[in-house]
Amino acid sequence: MIVVMTAGATQDDTQYVVARAQSLGLRTHVSLDNGRTVISLTGGLRGIESDALSGLRGVERVASLRLPYRLTSSEYKSERSIIPFNGLSIGGDEIMVMAGPCSVESQSQLLETAVAVKNAGAKLLRGGAFKPRTSPYSFQGMGEPGLKLLAEAREQTGLLIVTEVMSPEQVPLVCEYADVLQIGTRNMLNYSLLQEVGRVDKPILLKRGMMSTINEFLMSAEYILSHGNNHVMLCERGIRTFETYTRNTLDINAVGALKELTHLPVIVDPSHATGKASLVASASRAAVAAGADGLIIEVHNDPDHAWSDGDQSLNHSEFEALMGQLKAIAVAVGRTI
Amino acid sequence: MIVVMTAGATQDDTQYVVARAQSLGLRTHVSLDNGRTVISLTGGLRGIESDALSGLRGVERVASLRLPYRLTSSEYKSERSIIPFNGLSIGGDEIMVMAGPCSVESQSQLLETAVAVKNAGAKLLRGGAFKPRTSPYSFQGMGEPGLKLLAEAREQTGLLIVTEVMSPEQVPLVCEYADVLQIGTRNMLNYSLLQEVGRVDKPILLKRGMMSTINEFLMSAEYILSHGNNHVMLCERGIRTFETYTRNTLDINAVGALKELTHLPVIVDPSHATGKASLVASASRAAVAAGADGLIIEVHNDPDHAWSDGDQSLNHSEFEALMGQLKAIAVAVGRTI
Amino acid sequence: MIVVMTAGATQDDTQYVVARAQSLGLRTHVSLDNGRTVISLTGGLRGIESDALSGLRGVERVASLRLPYRLTSSEYKSERSIIPFNGLSIGGDEIMVMAGPCSVESQSQLLETAVAVKNAGAKLLRGGAFKPRTSPYSFQGMGEPGLKLLAEAREQTGLLIVTEVMSPEQVPLVCEYADVLQIGTRNMLNYSLLQEVGRVDKPILLKRGMMSTINEFLMSAEYILSHGNNHVMLCERGIRTFETYTRNTLDINAVGALKELTHLPVIVDPSHATGKASLVASASRAAVAAGADGLIIEVHNDPDHAWSDGDQSLNHSEFEALMGQLKAIAVAVGRTI
Amino acid sequence: MIVVMTAGATQDDTQYVVARAQSLGLRTHVSLDNGRTVISLTGGLRGIESDALSGLRGVERVASLRLPYRLTSSEYKSERSIIPFNGLSIGGDEIMVMAGPCSVESQSQLLETAVAVKNAGAKLLRGGAFKPRTSPYSFQGMGEPGLKLLAEAREQTGLLIVTEVMSPEQVPLVCEYADVLQIGTRNMLNYSLLQEVGRVDKPILLKRGMMSTINEFLMSAEYILSHGNNHVMLCERGIRTFETYTRNTLDINAVGALKELTHLPVIVDPSHATGKASLVASASRAAVAAGADGLIIEVHNDPDHAWSDGDQSLNHSEFEALMGQLKAIAVAVGRTI
Repeated sequence: MIVVMTAGATQDDTQYVVARAQSLGLRTHVSLDNGRTVISLTGGLRGIESDALSGLRGVERVASLRLPYRLTSSEYKSERSIIPFNGLSIGGDEIMVMAGPCSVESQSQLLETAVAVKNAGAKLLRGGAFKPRTSPYSFQGMGEPGLKLLAEAREQTGLLIVTEVMSPEQVPLVCEYADVLQIGTRNMLNYSLLQEVGRVDKPILLKRGMMSTINEFLMSAEYILSHGNNHVMLCERGIRTFETYTRNTLDINAVGALKELTHLPVIVDPSHATGKASLVASASRAAVAAGADGLIIEVHNDPDHAWSDGDQSLNHSEFEALMGQLKAIAVAVGRTI
Repeated sequence: MIVVMTAGATQDDTQYVVARAQSLGLRTHVSLDNGRTVISLTGGLRGIESDALSGLRGVERVASLRLPYRLTSSEYKSERSIIPFNGLSIGGDEIMVMAGPCSVESQSQLLETAVAVKNAGAKLLRGGAFKPRTSPYSFQGMGEPGLKLLAEAREQTGLLIVTEVMSPEQVPLVCEYADVLQIGTRNMLNYSLLQEVGRVDKPILLKRGMMSTINEFLMSAEYILSHGNNHVMLCERGIRTFETYTRNTLDINAVGALKELTHLPVIVDPSHATGKASLVASASRAAVAAGADGLIIEVHNDPDHAWSDGDQSLNHSEFEALMGQLKAIAVAVGRTI
Repeated sequence: MIVVMTAGATQDDTQYVVARAQSLGLRTHVSLDNGRTVISLTGGLRGIESDALSGLRGVERVASLRLPYRLTSSEYKSERSIIPFNGLSIGGDEIMVMAGPCSVESQSQLLETAVAVKNAGAKLLRGGAFKPRTSPYSFQGMGEPGLKLLAEAREQTGLLIVTEVMSPEQVPLVCEYADVLQIGTRNMLNYSLLQEVGRVDKPILLKRGMMSTINEFLMSAEYILSHGNNHVMLCERGIRTFETYTRNTLDINAVGALKELTHLPVIVDPSHATGKASLVASASRAAVAAGADGLIIEVHNDPDHAWSDGDQSLNHSEFEALMGQLKAIAVAVGRTI
Repeated sequence: MIVVMTAGATQDDTQYVVARAQSLGLRTHVSLDNGRTVISLTGGLRGIESDALSGLRGVERVASLRLPYRLTSSEYKSERSIIPFNGLSIGGDEIMVMAGPCSVESQSQLLETAVAVKNAGAKLLRGGAFKPRTSPYSFQGMGEPGLKLLAEAREQTGLLIVTEVMSPEQVPLVCEYADVLQIGTRNMLNYSLLQEVGRVDKPILLKRGMMSTINEFLMSAEYILSHGNNHVMLCERGIRTFETYTRNTLDINAVGALKELTHLPVIVDPSHATGKASLVASASRAAVAAGADGLIIEVHNDPDHAWSDGDQSLNHSEFEALMGQLKAIAVAVGRTI
């Protein structure tokens, strides 16, 4: 349920409605949309009548939203969100490219790739320090030393850092080093983690669950927004289907659908979505043409010897060539990279 | 198995190998690749030793292909196929757009839309006269009268005609009217039909089965090519997945994959792949950016009253606007529309 | 739409309603359910008002059915259908087991297996003479000589014959030899074929499309019933999912669902549903426990050397052991084998 | 990698191998299989040569396992695991039935249902105190008060308690009250949580991810076993497919497959696997016939008013009737309930 206040409602009016809602056992979240104050109500809505609030001073209307998600929806907020951070922003005309290795492996590997992707036009460096792996026996990431290497690479190149956080207790540590926190595909339904990153003031890159619907994806974003952090980017990274030629199936329809359904920026990960380096370029071009606000691409200085995901990593010159193609497509859709 | 003849092999040499293979119970198919004669052998290969043929005069080598499909593969034919028909061609620099209503409903409906899509830049008119419908009680198409209307629209607009054929016995009739025969998604595994259209000299638009792998798709193309017709266009039209927000999931990865695996032109159908008119534009742009050689798009003069597929049909002005966007993307990838 | 006649309606009343409906361009199908005459109307229902018929003499009511399928539904016919043929029947207390090789390969192979499955308790012999194969280069079945071998095996063992028909023009030939016509999974949406077998008086074993929903499965059955043949058995044979350990995923839920939704008998094919001989026994037991009315199982005298589907074929002693297990389960659910 | 010690190896021999492996940076896990000591090695196996260990005293062989999972596999441990807890055991001849409401809602609701399922033959009471819900606005469970009600119900009925734990920090709290900890389908890939429950001495009911392959399922079990807890039950609860008639598709093949691949007990959840109360009975019978070692079934005293999952909950009399059917099937497969 949301309460939309009138244009002339005062702060006191709003405070009174908030207090009244809280006394009914509801959680409240106050925000602005086009100059109007909107109070979003969550918690046990069972049996709460809207007239408990609709008669209060300054209340224009109390509405149930048509969709199961609220703060995330373009019904709730009609303008597209632009997420600012450390001098950059995502969601505007400029398409943001994030690139780097799957895993942080060593200082030299990371720095070499960081310099290469920066020169080719990337603005953020990706790299995993904590790696969720299907097998308990696989390399699980360097941990904090990996985070330190990422911070060092930022210092040397000016690239901002996006890296994954895997559990609630890692959040403070990763926040110390990263500019953007990534929630991986396996954790899209890890509600404890979503709630935790809902309380930090860093932008979140939320990856779609590999077998989650668009609706569930938006519900997971809603977990984050409803805990107070509305700097969420939605990342389509391929879904699991019956097709086995590719690692996943890039759901390119989701790009257009998410732009309809939500005001949040949409990112595409063509590396996991294809699983094959030879297909990354065509998938990346498609993503930009479809309307994506950013890309996150795996690049490695030596893909054949990468510790993880070598098959889907571009080398430096492939990435540079791809950036040239993407700039042309961006122009064709009225944007820049 | 294929037999590659030497550069100096004579027609007699080739004839002798063909006769020998046939005496072993094999079917043969002779073709040229870059000036070399290649004999493709099919039928009961069980227990046939390659040395029965490898010692014959003019034989350079007898090879098993690595892939289960042969004539279709880019291993077999290294140059991309350009399919010519009635003054047009598909597979070259120009991207071909086919547009029109799902079903032929009436003369005025068809003609009005034909004129509109022609003016916007389409080169072929699509329209169903025979409609495969899930329910035996749904409208099943106008049949031959619909074909006549299509032929009339060709006469008046110069657009070539692509229309579906549903069973082997319909093939001669549809051939009388159509320029391109379409095999629908439900018939991708209808081998009797594939064999039949393998024997005609019209280009075939083969739609991917909605739950068929890329490999199976190429095997179905192989059925057509191995019966003598190598003018086949492969059409990705969305696959069935767990996602229900869209009618199907456009497998945009398949565009890049098919361009790697085969020499045949690749077409995308964004209408069935999304099932929602509002998503057709972004899917179409993505398809062109990914490398598609053509598009087939449902356009209707009055989508709200279409007899079938109204939800996914563009109206005339939406189609015109889309064509403008696609021309820009085509330029960005070094092609034209 | 259906017209339900009153208990006292005469044949003349029925004839009059039929004639009236036909004059409106509708096709009619007259049947009996619990002593009541029911006229099912198909064809262009667009714009036909139910009051055109509801006022006629002897008409109790004109109803739209809630479901997209009609004749197939348990709403339309409340008693379970028992399909009789040549002294056997399917759909009653006795669970019918059909067994035999994937393909007919030779007289000795077929006969040896026929004797073995008969001794173990099977009542029908399965065997493919026409084989739909993904590759045009794979063995496509023996054709009519295979049918003759099946007929011979029937003569020698008394087993009835179930075998696949792949195209409309094969129907008369296969009818000469077979007791039950099988429509394979790839042809579940081949409407020309469905219509053709809707006009014969042999029972049809309709396999579910590997990519088809339960609803689409029933719509395909409806194609057959609406053309006059209501002796249809529905065969769940596994669906395509993301799981790759098994060839398909046996949708055991479909057994219960089909028994709710329709009056037709339900058969399970554990061989294709698993693709692994080692899993056939547990899947077969599950099917009988879930309520299946029959099973169709691949059995081969020498699975390691089968021309097709050897991996999923039981040998003779495995089949015999399985039949023992199934008899115990049948008793536990109040039935016999 | 595993090290299998000789029959005559001493504890000192084993200790030496363990120390040597740890000095190479490996984690070690010592276990017994049929009287032989087996040391499982995990951690960074990159570049570790097996000859670093194979020459040590008491070592019979150093082997790489064929499968990506080790401790979980039936190659590693040839006898089926029987998991004992508080007087019961799972994995032996007796099939264990766990039943109860989706969510704990109140004392009376829980106790009423507990008494009913106990009388019908259930041995464990299920009930959620922490509920993972797709929407942040849905009822998320009673939390600790719910756990207390479960403990109370145990005291009054003697039923043991199985309940879900959603995050690593909840583990100690849930351990205070529960006899079996459940990991839900959304958390099958939550590796932090898997590691945490790998360190407790309670049996774990691990539900298969709705989107996870059998192989990934076993890898998640491996996370738990490799951290020291080998009391894991694997629960098939339906997978996500294209079918929408049912909430999920019960992968009954997985029952047979898991019994082949692993020594761990296999449980089936027919409630989530179907999502429809009317299909729970047939799915349950199928599971027992296929070889499941246990069932977990949602039962509610008033399904129409359940706070969650009412559609798939049996009422008391339906559950009692089902137990009667299951006893008969159990006998048919040589087991008891």
